[in-house]
Amino acid sequence: MARSDTILALDIGGTKMLAALVRGNVVSETHTMATPHNGDPEAWLSALFEAIGSWQERYDTVGVAVTGIIDEGCWSPLNRRTLDIPDRFPLIETVARLSGARSVLAANDAQAAAWGEYAFGAGQGHDLVFLTISTGVGGGIVVNGRLLGGLAGHFGQFRSLGEEGRALEDKVSGHWIAAEAAPHRPGATARDVFEAAAAGRGWAQAIIETSARQTALLCGNIQLALDPARIVIGGGIGLAPGYLESVRRALGGLPPRLTPQLHPAALAEKAGVVGIADLARRQN
Amino acid sequence: MARSDTILALDIGGTKMLAALVRGNVVSETHTMATPHNGDPEAWLSALFEAIGSWQERYDTVGVAVTGIIDEGCWSPLNRRTLDIPDRFPLIETVARLSGARSVLAANDAQAAAWGEYAFGAGQGHDLVFLTISTGVGGGIVVNGRLLGGLAGHFGQFRSLGEEGRALEDKVSGHWIAAEAAPHRPGATARDVFEAAAAGRGWAQAIIETSARQTALLCGNIQLALDPARIVIGGGIGLAPGYLESVRRALGGLPPRLTPQLHPAALAEKAGVVGIADLARRQN
Repeated sequence: MARSDTILALDIGGTKMLAALVRGNVVSETHTMATPHNGDPEAWLSALFEAIGSWQERYDTVGVAVTGIIDEGCWSPLNRRTLDIPDRFPLIETVARLSGARSVLAANDAQAAAWGEYAFGAGQGHDLVFLTISTGVGGGIVVNGRLLGGLAGHFGQFRSLGEEGRALEDKVSGHWIAAEAAPHRPGATARDVFEAAAAGRGWAQAIIETSARQTALLCGNIQLALDPARIVIGGGIGLAPGYLESVRRALGGLPPRLTPQLHPAALAEKAGVVGIADLARRQN
Repeated sequence: MARSDTILALDIGGTKMLAALVRGNVVSETHTMATPHNGDPEAWLSALFEAIGSWQERYDTVGVAVTGIIDEGCWSPLNRRTLDIPDRFPLIETVARLSGARSVLAANDAQAAAWGEYAFGAGQGHDLVFLTISTGVGGGIVVNGRLLGGLAGHFGQFRSLGEEGRALEDKVSGHWIAAEAAPHRPGATARDVFEAAAAGRGWAQAIIETSARQTALLCGNIQLALDPARIVIGGGIGLAPGYLESVRRALGGLPPRLTPQLHPAALAEKAGVVGIADLARRQN
C-alpha cells in the first residue's frame, strides 16, 4: 500500500484532540490527548505532533477538523466561550510546518463529519444536511456534491424574534436537557434524562419532546431553505434511543413534499476524521 | 441577430401572467394579462400563447418562472391558498407543446429572480441568497455558481417554536404590515405605512422596525446556515425607502464575521424574466 493512501486526520476541539491514521473509511490507529489549557493552538499542535512523532513516515497528507471557522486556511473561534483561541490562527501553515506533509486541508469539524456521512455513511452520495445534536448543535451541508465551508451549517446558532439572547441550541442540546432536568433530579446528565424518560417519568419525556419538537422545526426549515435529499442526524442526543422517532412524530403534520427524509448518522464519532481524511485526499 | 439569442420568458403567478422577449438582460417586448380564475394552468397558458401568437417566429427557447415548486418539469403548489393548481401539473411538456419551442426550462419565480441578480444584478457573480420581501417573502440561493431548485429558498415559510401556526413571513411581509396598521389607520396599505413612518408617525415606525428586525434575524440565520458572499434584498417592502437601513441597524450588534453583506436588488420586477431567460439559454 503506497504511503499516500494513508492520511493523517486530526480532530481538534477545546477539550480533546484526536489524531488518526485513515485509509478510505478505515481508521487504523488513533491517539487522543487533552487539549492544553492555554488558548495557544501552536502549543496544542506541537504537543500533538510530538506524541505522534513515530507516525511521520506513514503519511504525506494531513486533514484537520476543528471547532470554529476556517477561512482561507486560518482558524477563528465562532464563540470564545466554547473555544478560546486568537482570530485567524494560521492553521494550515502551522500544520504543514509541524508535520512536514506535502498537502494539508482544514475544515470545521461538523462540516468534516457531514462529508464523512456523504462519502461513506448515511448520505450514500446524496446531497445532505448533517446535524449533530450533542452538548451543542452543529452541522454541515453538501450541495451538488460539494461541501460548503466558512460558517455554513452553524444551525445551532440560529436566533428567533423575542429570544435574541438565546441560540436555537439552547432549547435542543444535551446541555439544555441537563439544565432543564435539574429541578427534577439535581445533577442529572442528558443520558440520565433519556433513562428516566424510558422508565416512564413524565418530566423527562416532556424535556425530550421539547428538544425533539425544536429539532423537527429546524429540520422543516432546513427542508424549505435547501431542500436536501436527506437530513442525517448524529450526536449523542440525536442518536439516543427514541429521539429520532420523536422528531419524526413532530414532523407528522407536514405535507409529504415538505417532509424531511431523516436518517441516523452511520459513522458515529468516526465521521469527522473519516470525512476530513477524504476531503484531504480529494484535494491532492 | 440569430433567432436563438432571443428567449421567451414567462412569469406565471396566481393573479398575473407576464410574457417577455429577452436578450441578455434586455427586455425588448412584454405582454401582461390577468390569470384566469379557474385553477387550470393548461387554460392559462393557452390564453397566454394565443395572445402572443405573433411572437412565435422570434424565439426557439422558453424559460418559465412560476409561483410554487418545480420538480422534474412538473409544477406543484406550495400552498393552495396562494396558488390553486393541481399537484404535479406537467408544465414543461405543456409549454413545449403550446410554444413549439425546441427547449423549455422552468423554475420557481424567486429562484429565477435570484439567478437574474446573480448573473446581471447585485450579485455580480458572487454566491448569494436573494430575498424578496413583498406581499409575502420568497427567496433563492446560488451556491458555487449554481441555482438550487425544488423547495430551496422558501425562507418566508420558516416556522418557530411556540408559533407553529404562523410562518416567518407573517411577521415581515407587506400583508402583515398592512394588517398591523389597521387599528391605527383602517384600510392603510403597506405603502401608506411607509409614508406615515417617513412623516414621523410612531405606530408606523414601530411596525416597520418589527418587520426589519425579523428580516435581520433571518439574514443573520442565513449567514450562519449558508455563509453567502452577499444577501440581495428585493421586493416592494425590501426596497422601500429606509427599510434596508433598518435591517442593517438591527444587525449592528453582530461580530463582523457573522454580519451579512446586504445589497439592494438591482433588477427590480425584471429580475424574474431576465433570470429565467438566462437559465433557459444556459441549458441549451
